[in-house]
Amino acid sequence: MTGREAAEAEDRGTAWRRIADELESAIGRGDYAVGDTLPASIALAERYGVHRHTVRQAFRHLAEQGLVTVSRGRGTQVSARRVPYPIGRRVSMRANFRKVGITGSSAMLSAAAVTGDAEICAMLGLKAGARLWRVEGLSLADGTPMGTGTHWLSVERFADFDRAFHEAGASMTAALKVYGIEDYVRLSTRLTARLASEREAMLLKIEPGAAVMVSSAIDALPDLTPIHLVDSVFAGERVEMVVEPFAE
Amino acid sequence: MTGREAAEAEDRGTAWRRIADELESAIGRGDYAVGDTLPASIALAERYGVHRHTVRQAFRHLAEQGLVTVSRGRGTQVSARRVPYPIGRRVSMRANFRKVGITGSSAMLSAAAVTGDAEICAMLGLKAGARLWRVEGLSLADGTPMGTGTHWLSVERFADFDRAFHEAGASMTAALKVYGIEDYVRLSTRLTARLASEREAMLLKIEPGAAVMVSSAIDALPDLTPIHLVDSVFAGERVEMVVEPFAE
Repeated sequence: MTGREAAEAEDRGTAWRRIADELESAIGRGDYAVGDTLPASIALAERYGVHRHTVRQAFRHLAEQGLVTVSRGRGTQVSARRVPYPIGRRVSMRANFRKVGITGSSAMLSAAAVTGDAEICAMLGLKAGARLWRVEGLSLADGTPMGTGTHWLSVERFADFDRAFHEAGASMTAALKVYGIEDYVRLSTRLTARLASEREAMLLKIEPGAAVMVSSAIDALPDLTPIHLVDSVFAGERVEMVVEPFAE
Repeated sequence: MTGREAAEAEDRGTAWRRIADELESAIGRGDYAVGDTLPASIALAERYGVHRHTVRQAFRHLAEQGLVTVSRGRGTQVSARRVPYPIGRRVSMRANFRKVGITGSSAMLSAAAVTGDAEICAMLGLKAGARLWRVEGLSLADGTPMGTGTHWLSVERFADFDRAFHEAGASMTAALKVYGIEDYVRLSTRLTARLASEREAMLLKIEPGAAVMVSSAIDALPDLTPIHLVDSVFAGERVEMVVEPFAE
């Protein structure tokens, strides 16, 4: 297929895509701000000389990308941008949010010392059946829930961690400092997507059945000794993980 | 809260979690293989001395983690493990699958030369409005669809790329070799989660409304000059991105 042939095929079949691209650029430039309503499909259809269905298909495409929310009655509104969340050699929620001018806050939801699952104990370099802290936290950005995490740490190594974490305002970085750990690194992060459970939807204030990004991560001392596991669930519509291996 | 108090609170409130942990370990050890049906909730309730509802809550937890699929009539079946997909300084789908003993294959779905969106052109270091290849591919692991991607490359730099990509069996690594590019690196990957569109569900053979992991990535020459953008959509239930900054 030559470039010209391809362009013609495109003109016939995917006018909606051109419209979607233009609207996306307009949103990117700030012509439409977060919360703004895009022109109605009938107005855009006239402007582009296409059928309303074509414009609606462009709207659907933008909605799939998370750029707009289409709702009956309120029209097509520009969505809030996803908060970028860098996953590098050091991962700190507060620091991540601070970089993009967002005030992060956290809350401790629960804390319990439990008998460790064999797999988690092994990952933390502990004997099977060692006592582990299981501490749940909720993280917010400018007051909006972003993610909730279940943390696992050795009870022996981190005595009274429930209190330390709570007193540190549910900041892991601050809580670990209480135990003399001034620096820690992210060994690995595994990320996937699934639908939110009812409890997660409630905690994150998203629709039940909305998509969440699920992360399972291991933090370690600078000498790469694992000390902390965290299983997190992030609101897919609000957070974007960023991996830039050459940026650090 | 002391460890003992916490343990007692745990025993009262979250017997389901202990059961879920044990089942998870049993699956991890291979006591139950992919496709196996777990014992019925009534049998497990008897074994653990708990109510059936408690076992069902454990099943729900495992289902949320993607470890099992609960379906009426067929019981609770162990799901296939998610394919690990490393996101490092070099990202090649085929190489990623090969590492875990999976045969990757790809197909080209469409190819067209289009007028580039300003933002994409800028990211590729091209003038706004430059001609770009928009090439769609589908990737499979052992015959199961894993992800579908839309690739963007300069038409001027990559003449006849539609043919090259098709003849390379829709392998980006192989197609770029045709243009003398023996090595390329992953500059950045942005990942989030959303629900699958109808078309994506059809291509990936997942349920409409299932969760997908959405990736937007930039590949570059070893001197970090961007050459290739790819927007991909992965089946959340089948793929797990792995970020290990100290592993390379």
